[in-house]
Amino acid sequence: MTTPAVSSRDLPHPAREEIRLAAVLHALSDPMRLRIVRELAADGDELSCSDIDLPVTKSTSTHHFRVLREAGVVRQVYRGTAKMNGLRRTDLDGLFPGLLDAVLDALARESLR
Amino acid sequence: MTTPAVSSRDLPHPAREEIRLAAVLHALSDPMRLRIVRELAADGDELSCSDIDLPVTKSTSTHHFRVLREAGVVRQVYRGTAKMNGLRRTDLDGLFPGLLDAVLDALARESLR
Repeated sequence: MTTPAVSSRDLPHPAREEIRLAAVLHALSDPMRLRIVRELAADGDELSCSDIDLPVTKSTSTHHFRVLREAGVVRQVYRGTAKMNGLRRTDLDGLFPGLLDAVLDALARESLR
Repeated sequence: MTTPAVSSRDLPHPAREEIRLAAVLHALSDPMRLRIVRELAADGDELSCSDIDLPVTKSTSTHHFRVLREAGVVRQVYRGTAKMNGLRRTDLDGLFPGLLDAVLDALARESLR
């Protein structure tokens, strides 16, 4: 079951067992979303949306974070006035061992081409 | 440079160095296309489009093979009257080591859930 939103400030997330490979790959299939995932992986902790500088409008950036959240790639929580984002690494590594690391490695290799 | 089509029976493919991670992940982000890739990986050789039984119309199936070809995931060649498909494993493994195997492993795990 999708975790129900208990207030307007709680954002819906798929439970771990609801995360689907095709949706995860779709979420990762965009250069801006790959950049978000790379930054979150490099940081290893939560970052606010504005901590990650993307060459897109704020509404496009919000859209990309939402696609990542709805696919189960990131967890978004409000902390005070900031929306914080963290990679769901434990869930993803548990479901699909090696996938996230292979994508991050591929991204690093591509950036060197 | 994209390999130019020299006749109407030659299909355009991205050269190895033109293959982009985001496009590959997009091509893999669909359950039918994942199924095609799984069958080609399991077979290890070329298969015709009709060798892979998908629960979709022929035109949808053709579309899925085309997305995979244009992203650089499969190579499609005419042999007589059949359009044959092979996974571009050497190219993908060279560009993105471990990625294809991680996706195939994730797919196998998901099918057991």
